[in-house]
Amino acid sequence: MTEFDTETAVTALGDGVWQAHVSREWNIASNPNGGYLLAIALRSIQALDAHQDPLTVTAHFLRPGTANAPAELRTELIRAGRTITTARVSLSQGGKQRMEVIAGFGDLDAVSSNDHALTIEMPDIPPPDECTVRSGLEQGVDLPILQRLETRIHPDQARAGDVGRAEVSGWIRFGDGRPPDALAAVLFADAFPPSLFGLLGYVGWVPTVELTVHVRRRPTPGWLLGRFTTNDLQNGRLIEDGALWDETGALVAQCRQIGLVLS
Amino acid sequence: MTEFDTETAVTALGDGVWQAHVSREWNIASNPNGGYLLAIALRSIQALDAHQDPLTVTAHFLRPGTANAPAELRTELIRAGRTITTARVSLSQGGKQRMEVIAGFGDLDAVSSNDHALTIEMPDIPPPDECTVRSGLEQGVDLPILQRLETRIHPDQARAGDVGRAEVSGWIRFGDGRPPDALAAVLFADAFPPSLFGLLGYVGWVPTVELTVHVRRRPTPGWLLGRFTTNDLQNGRLIEDGALWDETGALVAQCRQIGLVLS
Repeated sequence: MTEFDTETAVTALGDGVWQAHVSREWNIASNPNGGYLLAIALRSIQALDAHQDPLTVTAHFLRPGTANAPAELRTELIRAGRTITTARVSLSQGGKQRMEVIAGFGDLDAVSSNDHALTIEMPDIPPPDECTVRSGLEQGVDLPILQRLETRIHPDQARAGDVGRAEVSGWIRFGDGRPPDALAAVLFADAFPPSLFGLLGYVGWVPTVELTVHVRRRPTPGWLLGRFTTNDLQNGRLIEDGALWDETGALVAQCRQIGLVLS
Repeated sequence: MTEFDTETAVTALGDGVWQAHVSREWNIASNPNGGYLLAIALRSIQALDAHQDPLTVTAHFLRPGTANAPAELRTELIRAGRTITTARVSLSQGGKQRMEVIAGFGDLDAVSSNDHALTIEMPDIPPPDECTVRSGLEQGVDLPILQRLETRIHPDQARAGDVGRAEVSGWIRFGDGRPPDALAAVLFADAFPPSLFGLLGYVGWVPTVELTVHVRRRPTPGWLLGRFTTNDLQNGRLIEDGALWDETGALVAQCRQIGLVLS
């Protein structure tokens, strides 16, 4: 068992209720990363024993999670279709709901009769060895999650305000060598520093209100490349777009979130 | 009362249950448009008497709706926060669930202490009078909805396969002159022809699995300009991105959907 698999495991309590333990190892400062909480929720959908691949996942973050504490998941199968399983999950801790999730699961390997294809090219950034190891110091916060997720930032984007626009790109993989899969792509979509960092510098915490991830392909083993941009910031609310590619250049996931700029 | 307001009205049955009548006037071929069903669902969230503006809306389309038939909405308030109200809605007809919705509502006019702003420029397309009136004939289907929503397509994109890429842009407004609002922006986000039409020609029905709309501003009266593109089509599943601007050039909404290409 890898760190990710162990620390996202769920135990059935019956009647669609599951229990998990929220580790402190995936913290951003003192709160668990939202993508980590989301991965736990998606485990409970996988445990329904229907489709196993998240195709479209939306999470609403209601309150911060609590690290090193149990969580209760109430999972409801909404529709078990032939090609898509739709389910929702409510994640609570200490009697308070922290997150509401709706997801459509399917089979990423299922073959379509439609053979048209379009894709978004992987950006050309320096290889991981020439990128900057991400440390919490640059962002001004303690980042225990960096022990779990090895993250390298584009060398031109590693310092606050470096970029002159709201963009961050870099490489990511599990610290223990676990190969990435569809669930990891959802986690990674929420694990990069905020793209506003490149424009504004220290923006502090940019709490996510809602995150939607579309997983497009099963990634190959190795690093994933992520690129995140904010082109729409208005009245303290931003839309951040992201995409992830595997080392073969294949597009693995797209994501978008609405977040709040508090400072 | 306008057509849109009358035909999306909901009646309280108590205990979070609402009833609506699904009109046939918003049909795409023989089924109600998904954005129209979604607008009905959002009415039941507005009826909770908390926040009135949809900021982030996600709908999973489980089965086609039935036109000229009643619908039952089960609405659950997930969290009533100071700045955001989160709620979910299940829309059923004939005892079968058609749609599952989760949404965060807020106040689009609320002022933030953060005064940074970024936006996406409105594309430069010909004015409505120089665009092509959309007719169902071009898409090969009957489109009753075009009596409710006046739609003009960019003259270079009006014929199947014209564009050479998956893009459609044009203007949209209510047929009865009702001014657009935040709820209209959600409807309009799902009312344009599929952007694949510009690349592939007659693609038939591109059923939406999931649609997420972020409303960014209250639109001014008049036309809204929409632009929709597909850059990611793989294994019969596409991601379509869209945006809407009002006549002042202000970005009103962004949207993204995952859909299926059946042919």
